[in-house]
Amino acid sequence: MNPPSASALLGAITAASRNEPDSGIMSAVNHGNGRTDIIPVWSGEGNVPTPEAFCRPAIESLLQGETFYTWQRGIPPLREALARYHERHYGRPFDPENFFVTGGGMQAIQTIIQMIAGAGDEIVLPTPAWPNYAGPMRLSGARPVEVPLDFENGSWHLDLDKLFGAITERTKAIVLNSPSNPLGWTASLDDLKAVRDECRKRGLWIVGDEVYARFYYGGAHETRAPSFLDICDSEEQLLLANTFSKNWAMTGWRVGWLQAPKALGPAIERIIQYNTSGTAAFLQRGCAAALDDGEDFIAEQVKQARANRDLVAQSLRRHPQVRFELPKGAFYMFFAIEGMKDSLATTLSIIDEAKVGFAPGGTFGPGGEGFLRMCYLRDPAKLKEALDRFGTWLETSKPS
Amino acid sequence: MNPPSASALLGAITAASRNEPDSGIMSAVNHGNGRTDIIPVWSGEGNVPTPEAFCRPAIESLLQGETFYTWQRGIPPLREALARYHERHYGRPFDPENFFVTGGGMQAIQTIIQMIAGAGDEIVLPTPAWPNYAGPMRLSGARPVEVPLDFENGSWHLDLDKLFGAITERTKAIVLNSPSNPLGWTASLDDLKAVRDECRKRGLWIVGDEVYARFYYGGAHETRAPSFLDICDSEEQLLLANTFSKNWAMTGWRVGWLQAPKALGPAIERIIQYNTSGTAAFLQRGCAAALDDGEDFIAEQVKQARANRDLVAQSLRRHPQVRFELPKGAFYMFFAIEGMKDSLATTLSIIDEAKVGFAPGGTFGPGGEGFLRMCYLRDPAKLKEALDRFGTWLETSKPS
Repeated sequence: MNPPSASALLGAITAASRNEPDSGIMSAVNHGNGRTDIIPVWSGEGNVPTPEAFCRPAIESLLQGETFYTWQRGIPPLREALARYHERHYGRPFDPENFFVTGGGMQAIQTIIQMIAGAGDEIVLPTPAWPNYAGPMRLSGARPVEVPLDFENGSWHLDLDKLFGAITERTKAIVLNSPSNPLGWTASLDDLKAVRDECRKRGLWIVGDEVYARFYYGGAHETRAPSFLDICDSEEQLLLANTFSKNWAMTGWRVGWLQAPKALGPAIERIIQYNTSGTAAFLQRGCAAALDDGEDFIAEQVKQARANRDLVAQSLRRHPQVRFELPKGAFYMFFAIEGMKDSLATTLSIIDEAKVGFAPGGTFGPGGEGFLRMCYLRDPAKLKEALDRFGTWLETSKPS
Repeated sequence: MNPPSASALLGAITAASRNEPDSGIMSAVNHGNGRTDIIPVWSGEGNVPTPEAFCRPAIESLLQGETFYTWQRGIPPLREALARYHERHYGRPFDPENFFVTGGGMQAIQTIIQMIAGAGDEIVLPTPAWPNYAGPMRLSGARPVEVPLDFENGSWHLDLDKLFGAITERTKAIVLNSPSNPLGWTASLDDLKAVRDECRKRGLWIVGDEVYARFYYGGAHETRAPSFLDICDSEEQLLLANTFSKNWAMTGWRVGWLQAPKALGPAIERIIQYNTSGTAAFLQRGCAAALDDGEDFIAEQVKQARANRDLVAQSLRRHPQVRFELPKGAFYMFFAIEGMKDSLATTLSIIDEAKVGFAPGGTFGPGGEGFLRMCYLRDPAKLKEALDRFGTWLETSKPS
């Protein structure tokens, strides 16, 4: 027999799987991958590998033979360390039973979506946003309802009336990512209270992504952004996705967690069972060490990120055609270039011409076209070099 | 505010998430967990930890800082090692581009289901089967159509007419697990050809789970079971889920792979991106070592499994109320006890009374009630002790 054509094969998978667009971030990465002359700032990760102190407990566990199936919800010592970490930073008691270990923050998000939204259901989220919220919603048959923030007078505004106006009878949740990837925009406590109250009133899930909470450039004594954990009860309709990736430089480990009301425990366990069936126990030993002993490392990372943010801002301000808001959190600069209509084409041109790899703003949903995203949690010397190259490009070239 | 009740919270998740039954295997595990006097044979894993030779390359990679985001489809060296492994065992060339690394064989199965079946679609599968096929189908909104094999005159028969008769216009695939968990039943090449031809004729996906292919108790020179890879083209509607868990004693690593036509590559990458966003690169280094250097270890494991199978059979044959077919593959004994109507209740009684932990047959779907499953890839001394305890129980107790 002759094997079927590519189009016949694609015709035999679901429309949602077939039609889901490729991430513009991946398009940039694939365009520049393998070229050693390019300085990449496209991905959401720092340049520092995982500290050895977090690796050692994982290695020890592996060599001691902790290589069997494990708890679907995560090993008790890691869930206890999560409770301790939250107690330290949110100033109240937390119960290990509210924490569920996942194969990365992304898997926590997918688990949330699978649990709360079926075919035809809607989830409201402000954009520009990380494309990995809307993507898994579409794959599940749910509909992301995207409400763009306004970029006015050089700053981003969340219009709460517009956000709440997008709620229908099919809406199951509001997703709020603060500090925001890609914007750096950070919700105030009043914003969070308004979202909480609307969700309570309408019986919706509050879905929070506070992955960048520690990367917050507030006052001298503020070590985290305002949080739903400041104003919500652990047992209400609140679901938080989080990860070890950013704070502890563990992107490549693929371990995160989900915080949820205890009553959902068995449902979450079943979803995990049918996905990865748990996270390697030996990796979780390293994550527990990171939580307990990682504060100095985080402080150092955040200090570097803040200095880098200021460096990027200073450099970009020299170019009148570039506009941005100085980010309050996370580690991205999201900037507009005057006259840019096609951020993906521009991104690819800049890779080829300036040897700097940004992520195209259009991939972050409504309101993102016309912008580029740069991750600035990088080696400062490399970052300076990237900014110089890009500055030269701006002076000599036009965006698409 | 008073937080909502547990039932209100459960009412706010999807019906599929809420109503999915707990696995009977997990019910047994939870009943016996933490009791050191119990000999557990409930899970599908051996008693030997991962050999150090497979751990060392992972440790080296981790310490060298390979801790960043990686290829969504897996690192090239592992995909090349997979092609080499298949060339060795299936006697023809394989292309690394047909292999996609996943967070366990389970995630490979979930990825397949998400890709080929949406709400209302059907997938046909013979039972008794591992509950982790039907579960993720139901969670995706798809419908598992379960066709029981017949247990007649002490052996299992797959009635192909009955299997194909279950196909409707909504059917997207036939799933075949051979050697079978829990039965040990193994498809002949003629069975596989018949399934292949029916799928080709009806435009269905052939979904194969050949995780236990190497645990095959055939003739002296047979080192694997008959496979769809013997009779199918890599670029046809064929999807195979597999794992490092069983052959290489890596259950706790949570790494597997998916074999698929190349045309599906971008769709598979997107599904992986929206789930775990890839598998830890440093773990993949250990998996590559297992593929290249693991043959002696596999041979030793299979030899032990075969001896254990014969030990179990010999012991159970002493009890006329027990019936089973000597398994041709995998490492489970699936046996009936005369008069048993409730396999879960019986399993829990045996845990309490005989201190042996089986898995209840009812959890494996239609045709499974009335049976118990035991994993025999265990330490032989422990296995003998478990069989003695169970033998005494059989002589003194009645099943529920």
